[in-house]
Formats: sequence, structure tokens, C-alpha cells
Amino acid sequence: MLDQISSEIENLAPEAERLFYEIAKISSDGSGITRPAFCRQETAAGDIIRKFAELEGLSCGIDGVGNFQYELPGSDNGSMVIMGSHLDSVPVGGNYDGLAGVIGGVLVQVACKRLSIAPPHKLRTIGFRGEESPWFGIAYVGSRLLLGQLTKAELEKLKHKITGKTLAQHLEELGIKTSEVSLSKNRLAVDSVRAYLELHIEQGPVLESKGIPIGAATAIRGNIRHPFAVCRGEYGHSAAVPRNLRRDAVIATARFIAKADQFWKELFDTGNHDDLIVTFGILSTNHAEHAMTKIPGETNFSFAISSINNTVLAKLYNDLMAEARKIEKELNVSFDFGQQAGTEAVRLSDEFIVKTETTAKELHLSSMRIPTVGHDAALFARAGIPTGVIIVKNQNGSHNIHEAMKIDDFLGATKVLASCALI
Amino acid sequence: MLDQISSEIENLAPEAERLFYEIAKISSDGSGITRPAFCRQETAAGDIIRKFAELEGLSCGIDGVGNFQYELPGSDNGSMVIMGSHLDSVPVGGNYDGLAGVIGGVLVQVACKRLSIAPPHKLRTIGFRGEESPWFGIAYVGSRLLLGQLTKAELEKLKHKITGKTLAQHLEELGIKTSEVSLSKNRLAVDSVRAYLELHIEQGPVLESKGIPIGAATAIRGNIRHPFAVCRGEYGHSAAVPRNLRRDAVIATARFIAKADQFWKELFDTGNHDDLIVTFGILSTNHAEHAMTKIPGETNFSFAISSINNTVLAKLYNDLMAEARKIEKELNVSFDFGQQAGTEAVRLSDEFIVKTETTAKELHLSSMRIPTVGHDAALFARAGIPTGVIIVKNQNGSHNIHEAMKIDDFLGATKVLASCALI
Repeated sequence: MLDQISSEIENLAPEAERLFYEIAKISSDGSGITRPAFCRQETAAGDIIRKFAELEGLSCGIDGVGNFQYELPGSDNGSMVIMGSHLDSVPVGGNYDGLAGVIGGVLVQVACKRLSIAPPHKLRTIGFRGEESPWFGIAYVGSRLLLGQLTKAELEKLKHKITGKTLAQHLEELGIKTSEVSLSKNRLAVDSVRAYLELHIEQGPVLESKGIPIGAATAIRGNIRHPFAVCRGEYGHSAAVPRNLRRDAVIATARFIAKADQFWKELFDTGNHDDLIVTFGILSTNHAEHAMTKIPGETNFSFAISSINNTVLAKLYNDLMAEARKIEKELNVSFDFGQQAGTEAVRLSDEFIVKTETTAKELHLSSMRIPTVGHDAALFARAGIPTGVIIVKNQNGSHNIHEAMKIDDFLGATKVLASCALI
Repeated sequence: MLDQISSEIENLAPEAERLFYEIAKISSDGSGITRPAFCRQETAAGDIIRKFAELEGLSCGIDGVGNFQYELPGSDNGSMVIMGSHLDSVPVGGNYDGLAGVIGGVLVQVACKRLSIAPPHKLRTIGFRGEESPWFGIAYVGSRLLLGQLTKAELEKLKHKITGKTLAQHLEELGIKTSEVSLSKNRLAVDSVRAYLELHIEQGPVLESKGIPIGAATAIRGNIRHPFAVCRGEYGHSAAVPRNLRRDAVIATARFIAKADQFWKELFDTGNHDDLIVTFGILSTNHAEHAMTKIPGETNFSFAISSINNTVLAKLYNDLMAEARKIEKELNVSFDFGQQAGTEAVRLSDEFIVKTETTAKELHLSSMRIPTVGHDAALFARAGIPTGVIIVKNQNGSHNIHEAMKIDDFLGATKVLASCALI
């Protein structure tokens, strides 16, 4: 059966390319792709796929919390396999992050439909809204809603960074009732879900650098984040305060970051912690007060560490906090890390890691095991649903306008997705 | 004679307080003091002092390049001692930075006049315009003009940050011809100047923290500065690029700054380099592109080191550039330090260091040797004129609205200034 489906998926290549092209066209921002959550471009993307899916005989609609869903009935045992990913993009991002998983899921359904294959479980593909965090300040909005993880109060508090509207207002514009009752009524019946499967482009260069088209994701990293950390010292005329009286926030922050990098290097060099990540993506002195010859009295920075190993993550975090306390004493500054966000690491289902590997082999495609970053899949895995993530080789990274993906690699991963979905 | 002059300077305390108060009043900006170079407030400050000086019998006027000058004839040997400092302030600064040296010089002259003391050399006090760099983007405008260090072309190029007018226009408004001939005619005859003496508030906390009212400045620090340095790496999804493929500009910059601090500490710990300063006052990732979970691809920062020892300065600079090259290789980033600015360190005259110490002792005031930052004095010292800088204890630092100075400390330093001026 894999042969049949594979060749039907091959036949669908022109349709896939057309879908990617049309959706890129309606979400171009002049330099890259911008599909803001719950906005015109995200809805248009879901509708372009719906038009195609309906022509192919799938039943399509909006679920009770605003996500697009595309369905193919299975043998009627009441269970369901969910495929999917997200329709939104980051600002000035690329076309494939998220979208590939939605189109991949629909291609699997269309191939089955064309071949009159009745899948063992009902197949639902979901095009999630609002997975990217820039829009509401939190990630996974669509899947959180579906899994009943957002309260009415939160819907009214979360504000869209571009439209200024609350998430509740955006849902109501889609005709969705946001009462607690309605929210709980629309919660996914987790027990009926046999599996959640997400095809996603790799957001880094590993597969590309090794020339391997398919990654079998082993785990989704957990993380500990402080988006708004501050180091406070004291401003002063640089040439007039002696070294031992200075309270220099830049030097303190630099020492902290350099130390974090050193701890990371030590763990990395053991060869056992390739998956560990330390990032200070944002760092700035205060524009209103800083000057070249002024001792910097304040830095603002972001702090993010992540790993597939919760123990390693907690130990590194504690070591870094101890280091901050040490620097505070030595340099007479204070670190205020502010609000903490984070999620625990989660292992993905062995069943689909193995299935991905064996299917790739049957297709004469190479594959490798690889950890991955957070996707909607993380929530389904944490909810206890057997979850698989199939990673597609991708060029030039992600969250940028140069993001790329070769159609052949995409079709290969879609065949693997089909094999996993038809368990 | 010192006793007589000292008690006359004491008598002048109320006049000094009134002058500081009236000038503060006309240069208040609502929260602090703003006396922009070549503007109404700067001129009013010079005129308030002129009114007082004329009543006391000094001859007053504007020199050929726009600075205020207040004169008392000496025994007619054709030589002159110049006292003075600047009339302008930084934006939203304090009242004493600069102004104290002008009022101090005039008090010395008035005390001599009242006591009918004929000084050995003619005494000229200069109220310089435009010493602070925010106004025209360069420091020492008034003293540069007097020493013939600005060309007509430069006068027409330098633009006032607030008024938008060129320096040439501002000079012409004061009735000053800006032809090359006129500029050279008004150049100070350096050979006729026996000494340049500047009383200036300390701009840091050393004297205050030690409870010492008088500093004998030993040298004016030289510096090497890069106002617009850049470190370039590559942006990428933080959770997707493995450590050994990352080109993280923040980690590279942090490592560079931490290393600079370490080099500084090593030199400081020898006990011989108290005067050395390392400052990274400005540091920022790129606001248009950075994000918490993005590998930072760029930092912008300022780099400034200074010392009274040109050899130490050059060696530290070379060591840091070598360190930058090392980090570039290790982390696959590039440092571009951009335009370089700087001046050489200059030693001040031993004669006045000793005179300051011995006079303070006679007055039963404690004093200490201390290096200082750039003042108008730097240009006179570099021009080969024996130069002394007398530092007055000052609270709360400088270049801010909380700058303070106690009138008793000021009067003590003015007595020392008198002793130096009457050599």
C-alpha cells in the first residue's frame, strides 16, 4: 500500500507547489512572509487549502475554537489520527514553517481519497492558528484552545500585538462563543485520538549539512526563559569613578553571559548534550541614558536555555543563578531576572520514531534521529497522546525570509507521514 | 601674602554664592542646568560675571574668537597667567562643571584688586565657550579657536546640534570675522603665557569618598575610542542551530568585554594603574531583528579606554585587538571597530602639582594627587604652556542634575588657585 500512496503523493506534486505558491502570494509582506495569527492572511491560507480539499472530496470547516480542519472518514471505530501544524508565520518569516505540515496532512488525505483507501482511523488535518509567539506573546494559541488550556479570563487578557484586539475579540469575529461552557464543550476528546502527527521543516542546518532528507524527532526540548531580565548597577562619569567603586552593568552582564557560554561548552564537550541550547537573543543598554563615556547603569536582556533533559536543564539553571549571585557580590550590581516562563522537555513516541525510520528505509531515503524545538506537537504529547514529529530537511534556517525547502524532500516526508497516519 | 588673599577670598563668599545662584537661574531647564554653547544662556552667564568684575575694576570683554575675558594688569613684563574654564554645560547637567573655574579665576583677580596687589604677571581669566562636546560634536571649541586649531573650513562644517547653525554663523553673530587672516591674528601668543591654571570640580567620587577637599591633578588622561563598533555573526533559530555551527554576536561580544575587564583587573591589581579606565557604555542587539529565541547576528557597542600612560594605553589596545581576532576565529564572527578617535595623555606641570600641595598644607586643607579627565587645560598643556589643574571635591558626580559643590571647598581651591597664579 505504501507504494500506491507514494506514487499518488508524487502525482500531487504540482498541486502542492501551487498551494505553497498561492499562499506565499497572499502572505507576502514585500520582503518575506507575514501571516499574523487570526488575521486576513492566516484565514486566506486556510481557505486556499480548503478550496483544494473540498474539490478532492474532503469535508472541511472551522473547529469550535477557530482552527481549520480537513477530514477524511476512517473505518468507523470512533478513533482519530490528527495530522497538522500551524498556518501563521512569524513576522517577516518564511513560507514553509508550519504550512508544510498542514499541506502534508491534506495531501495524505487526498491520496487516500483518490485511491479509495479507507484509513483505519478517521484522519483529521488541523491548520492551527497562532502557533507563533510574536502575535499574542504566547505560543500554541490554536492548540491550547483545542486542548482546553486557555480560560475565558486569559482570552480577554491576551492582546494581539498588531491589531490590538484581545484573543476573545478575534474569536468572536470568527463567530466563536468564548464562554467557559462553550470553551469546555469544544475541548478535544483526548481519549479518542490514536495519534498526533506533525510534519515540520527543520529550523536549523543539521539535516541539510549532512544531506539527510528526513529526521525522526526524538523529543521536544523543554526550556526555562526570562524574557525581560535586568542587570542594575549605577551610572557615572566613566573617567571619574575608580575601578573598585564602579557598578558597571555591561561588564557584569558580559561576565554572566561569558560564564553561561563556558558552562554550556563544558557540557557540550562531554558529547552527551548536543541538544542543550543557551541563548541571549536580546541585550541592550538603556537608550535614554547610555553614552560612550558613561558607566552603564543598566542592561536589559533575554535569557533562554533549553534541553531535552529536564535534569540537565534544572542543574544548568541553578548553576547560572548561583553565578549571578556571585557576580552581584563581586561587582556590586543586582540581577533581576523577572518573570519566568518555561515548559518541561517531552519525549516523543518511540512507535513513530521507529515507523519514520523504517518507512524512510523502504522509500530508499536516509533518515536520522534528531531532537526538535517546540511545535503544536508538544501540547499533544504532554496531553498523553502518542505523538510523532517528522522533520524535513530545509535550507537557510527558519524564521527568516530565506527559508527554503525542496519539493522532493517535502514529498518524501509526506509519504512517511502517510505511513504513520495509516497505522 | 597668602593669608591676606585668603581672607579676602573668604570675604567674597557671598558674591560667589550670588554669582552661582544668578547663573543657575538663567540657565535652568526645568529639571537641571542647560547652557548650550554660543547660545543665550552661555552669553548671559559670561555677562553676569562681567557685570560683577567691572564693578570691581577689572577690564572685561570678548576675545577675538568669542570667549569672555576678564583682566587685571600685572607688573608689566609682557607675560601673562591665564586662569579659566568653560561657561557652557552639557544638556541637563549641573551648575558647577566649568563655571566654578571661571568664577574662581575672577575671585582671585578681585581679591588682588581689592588688596591692591600687583600680580607678577598679568592675570587673565577666560570664560571659554563650547567646551562640552554635545553642542558641535567636538570638545574644547573656545580654547581650540584661541589656540588657532580650527580652520575656516571647519568653522563652516561644524553644526550646532540645537540651533542648526554653523560655528562660523555663531561667531559672526558675535561680530567676529571668520576669515583665515582674522583667525590667525587672534591666535594666542603662546610664548607670552607663563601658565594656564584651571580650577574644576571633580567629576567622580574619589575626593568626596576620602573626605579630601583638594586634588592636585597629575595628568590628563589620553584615550582611544571607537564610538560605533560592531560585531557581526549570523541570525538563526536558536533552538535549531547546533552550538558548533552558531555565529552568536552576543556571546562573542560578551567574551570580548569580559576579557577586556580581566586585562584591566590584572593591570589594576599591580597597584600601578589606578588611572586606567575601560568602558563599554553602549551595547545593543539590533532592535529590528533580535528576538528571545533567535541567535543574535549583530551587536553594536562603544569602546573607550583611557590612561595617563600612553604606553600602557597602546599595549592594552593592541592586546584587546589581538583578543578580538582570536574570538573572531573561535566563534566565526567578525568585529568591525569602525572609526577611531583619541588623544594622547598629557602630564601636567610638576611646578603646580607641588604648589597645590604646599599651599593646601599652609591652608590646613588636605589634598591628594589625582589624574583627571579632559578639560580646556589639555590643549594648553599640549601647546607647551606650563599647566595646572586644581580639582575641587564635588558630590553626586557630574554631567547630571544632582552635581553639587560646597562653597567652603570651592573657596579653599580658589585660594590654591591664587597661590599658583601669583608665582
